[in-house]
Amino acid sequence: MKTDVQIAQEASVRPISEIAEYLGITDEEYELYGKYKAKVSLGVLERLENKPDGKLILVTAINPTPAGEGKTTVNVGLSMGLNQIGKKTITALREPSLGPVFGIKGGAAGGGYAQVVPMEDINLHFTGDFHAITSAHNLLAAMLDNHIHQGNTLNINPKRVVWKRVLDMNDRALRNIIIGLGGTGDGFIRQSGFDITVASEVMAILCLANSFSDLKERLSRMVVAYTFDGNAVTAGDLKATGAMTLLLKDAIKPNLVQTLENTPAFIHGGPFANIAHGCNSVMATKIGLKLADYVVTEAGFGADLGAEKFFNIKSRFAKLKPNAVVVVATIRALKMNGGIAKDELDNENVAALNKGFANLERHLQNVNKFGVPALVAINKFPTDTEAEIDLLKERCSEKGVDVILTDVYAKGGAGAIELAEKVVEVCETKQSQYMPLYDTEHSIVEKITTIATEIYRAERVEFTAQAKRQIKEIEKLGLDKMPVCIAKTQYSFSDNPALLGAPTGFTITVREIKVNAGAGFIVAITGSIMTMPGLPKVPAANGMDITEDGTIIGLS
Amino acid sequence: MKTDVQIAQEASVRPISEIAEYLGITDEEYELYGKYKAKVSLGVLERLENKPDGKLILVTAINPTPAGEGKTTVNVGLSMGLNQIGKKTITALREPSLGPVFGIKGGAAGGGYAQVVPMEDINLHFTGDFHAITSAHNLLAAMLDNHIHQGNTLNINPKRVVWKRVLDMNDRALRNIIIGLGGTGDGFIRQSGFDITVASEVMAILCLANSFSDLKERLSRMVVAYTFDGNAVTAGDLKATGAMTLLLKDAIKPNLVQTLENTPAFIHGGPFANIAHGCNSVMATKIGLKLADYVVTEAGFGADLGAEKFFNIKSRFAKLKPNAVVVVATIRALKMNGGIAKDELDNENVAALNKGFANLERHLQNVNKFGVPALVAINKFPTDTEAEIDLLKERCSEKGVDVILTDVYAKGGAGAIELAEKVVEVCETKQSQYMPLYDTEHSIVEKITTIATEIYRAERVEFTAQAKRQIKEIEKLGLDKMPVCIAKTQYSFSDNPALLGAPTGFTITVREIKVNAGAGFIVAITGSIMTMPGLPKVPAANGMDITEDGTIIGLS
Repeated sequence: MKTDVQIAQEASVRPISEIAEYLGITDEEYELYGKYKAKVSLGVLERLENKPDGKLILVTAINPTPAGEGKTTVNVGLSMGLNQIGKKTITALREPSLGPVFGIKGGAAGGGYAQVVPMEDINLHFTGDFHAITSAHNLLAAMLDNHIHQGNTLNINPKRVVWKRVLDMNDRALRNIIIGLGGTGDGFIRQSGFDITVASEVMAILCLANSFSDLKERLSRMVVAYTFDGNAVTAGDLKATGAMTLLLKDAIKPNLVQTLENTPAFIHGGPFANIAHGCNSVMATKIGLKLADYVVTEAGFGADLGAEKFFNIKSRFAKLKPNAVVVVATIRALKMNGGIAKDELDNENVAALNKGFANLERHLQNVNKFGVPALVAINKFPTDTEAEIDLLKERCSEKGVDVILTDVYAKGGAGAIELAEKVVEVCETKQSQYMPLYDTEHSIVEKITTIATEIYRAERVEFTAQAKRQIKEIEKLGLDKMPVCIAKTQYSFSDNPALLGAPTGFTITVREIKVNAGAGFIVAITGSIMTMPGLPKVPAANGMDITEDGTIIGLS
Repeated sequence: MKTDVQIAQEASVRPISEIAEYLGITDEEYELYGKYKAKVSLGVLERLENKPDGKLILVTAINPTPAGEGKTTVNVGLSMGLNQIGKKTITALREPSLGPVFGIKGGAAGGGYAQVVPMEDINLHFTGDFHAITSAHNLLAAMLDNHIHQGNTLNINPKRVVWKRVLDMNDRALRNIIIGLGGTGDGFIRQSGFDITVASEVMAILCLANSFSDLKERLSRMVVAYTFDGNAVTAGDLKATGAMTLLLKDAIKPNLVQTLENTPAFIHGGPFANIAHGCNSVMATKIGLKLADYVVTEAGFGADLGAEKFFNIKSRFAKLKPNAVVVVATIRALKMNGGIAKDELDNENVAALNKGFANLERHLQNVNKFGVPALVAINKFPTDTEAEIDLLKERCSEKGVDVILTDVYAKGGAGAIELAEKVVEVCETKQSQYMPLYDTEHSIVEKITTIATEIYRAERVEFTAQAKRQIKEIEKLGLDKMPVCIAKTQYSFSDNPALLGAPTGFTITVREIKVNAGAGFIVAITGSIMTMPGLPKVPAANGMDITEDGTIIGLS
């Protein structure tokens, strides 16, 4: 089989102006970034204010395993399938982070014949959104440290600066650093560090902003430090909001590209799915709903993290009404959840599949708690056996859930026709009763406990002394009436990555609580969450190249 | 008078596709970045290989003072003036650095009615070139530290890593840092720091590359560290070249914009004029020469730094044949060079002007040493008196040099008609005999001494013990046969910023020698050169904003 970059470079791609025209976006409402990328103006939303929204489909997955699930690939394939059966569909995805492209991943724009293109641009700088976020974030950091250096009239406690710097790079050596060494002109000495850009609160804000003015207000509210008296210091206090918004003036506009089958695609924003909410931008989703019959979008990691946050954070803030959820699984990944090692996945193992099904089942139950109809898409692998497929269908049928096999990697939209038809049937026959799982007026402890027990199925939730102290402080600052964003390992329902399947009887330990007053959520950290990845011993970058004629090697 | 951003936002700007068409660039040879910016393919150069080049005009200046000289403004105004008198002209400038925009400057795309537009984009992210350079630079840094962390098979001495990280930000707290703190997975602990992106060798390389393959070869040769045995470790050794080139695949293409009078402008690249050569990209200059009758380009700081490097580094490498040099001065700045304080510049002072003229005179003599005809452009200020103007004309006339008054800030191209006519006359009547000042085969000490005595007029050149040791090492590595790039204060011919006018009898002290094997020059550092600026007490960022309708405040 051809590599992803080969398939992408051979695709018959249409000028993006044709895609924009097909969607009814006027010439004044988009700007080209090369021939195959465009930024769409927020004015579209205003113009189409009174037009009814299309249907919103969330694609989520079981807990990820090294076997691979292919959530993005199914998302792209489903939107192409919907297009093939005559539904005007937009696929709405997150932008890949540049850092991991050079580490292990090598790219993240779908795969095989279910890709978005131009994948080489999408995987690299794209339209510069992440760079704009990096600049805005680091401008604030520079202004903050400069403020302390220049006399500190805001009375900032340098030991309580919570705003780090960011780079869109996997750079382990920057995780923990000491800054401000040198002479008298070289700033104040303190310990700090870099996160990867997708972990920036600015990223979360860009993705949650409902409008341009909402973007500015949220930036202004971000807490960057505390004073010696324990008061919060915000970006607004540092007079950084205007300049930051100026740096984000184009980044806030959704990026229009297309799939290999010319299905329109909005690829916009990409916050982490643990310390942030892991969904593409609200602006892209909302504009998409005005332009298409169907918008197919995804959320990061498994449904315990991604779907939960899509419902409790994104949909709540943006007043979205999701119509259906597709839970993606592979038979291989379910077998891993059933206790099988990666190198034994090629062998038929109905018992392991049966055991691992518990993971899928729990995610399906969880989706139902939000009142949204769910169905299962199985991303087919050549090693799947008939007995395994039969068992999976039987188990789903027992639960009254539709399960559909897809083969989008090899066949594109044609591999998702049945899934597309079933999605349409669900949307047309089942009424979504979406509502968030908890009330934001509840206490922080109550909100965390609700998610931990209802979604993760923890038996108990423990809070460290540090977390308790931080909760008290947030309550004192009056910032506690916001949704909660739990940072947890993506590999397990629990906070222990080794507990696969559907574990019970475990305790979730909340180590640390942070407030993202701009994004509008409280982050509860369980386990140890890596916010600056490292490169592996042999980085993917080692194998990358571009020849004089533009042929790209090593992106996949 | 209106602010720069007001004038720019009210300008009658043409779609950049029309500008491209006017230049004879085919549809396939450019890509739009919004309606008013485009990237031009390097293929233009190949297509027009046999077309004779246009005339190349360098705009340089006296030593900069706080009074302001307006070199970029005159550059833009002259190109508009040439266009007004019927010469097809391209203005070729450097891209502004984002960092200083938020510090003191507030913008750098000309001024008044002699600006390039869209100035708000040019001053912010533009087409992402600097972000691409930042990413490529920092990918190499991450790969280097990761290499040490993962076992260090190249035997790199962590105390001898010379590759720092970069950000396009004025961030004093990052000048000197310790990285790699934390646990066993968090890299190797060592001291390091960040430079501003324009100080990156990758920037210098992007600007000096003659072709795509030249870009890749130069990146590969960059020395990033030394082994415990004293051998050089390059980007090629770290297998970073392919991925870095991939990150730069679009950044290498010149950016096409326009002046307020629709004169085509290539704004591309922007290396420092002290530790690097301070000129826009070779690719933009060369493509410009194929497309226009005249290309007007500038070099950083005064002629002692910018013009010297334009001749000895850029023109040498790119085999350019500059036809004429315009030395920009203001009467105010000459009076400062004559010893007058800034707050007394509004008063007529013929004696101070007469004394300060020595600065201009020396720069004119220096330009002649490169065999290129020179003329003087005076950027008019309302405070200039007739007696002052008369004296300046008389002194220039004594030296046989044309001096022309310009008023481009208030009048645009119409304020530079006489200058344009004189430039054409010089190009058509005087034969340029351009040649570099020294042979690269000479020793490092000889090359530095030639520049210091012939251009700066130092009496003596001293080398610190450190510099001597470094020269020996570079000779041992066989990297000494390259041009020399001297990093020196821009305010004086000497290495003491307080010595204005035309100082004599001084000693230049070379503190440190670095090798930029990729850029292809040896950097000799005199005095203390700041490669990471800081923000002032009240940063320009404090006053910046953008309203919902897109009105921008605070850029100038």
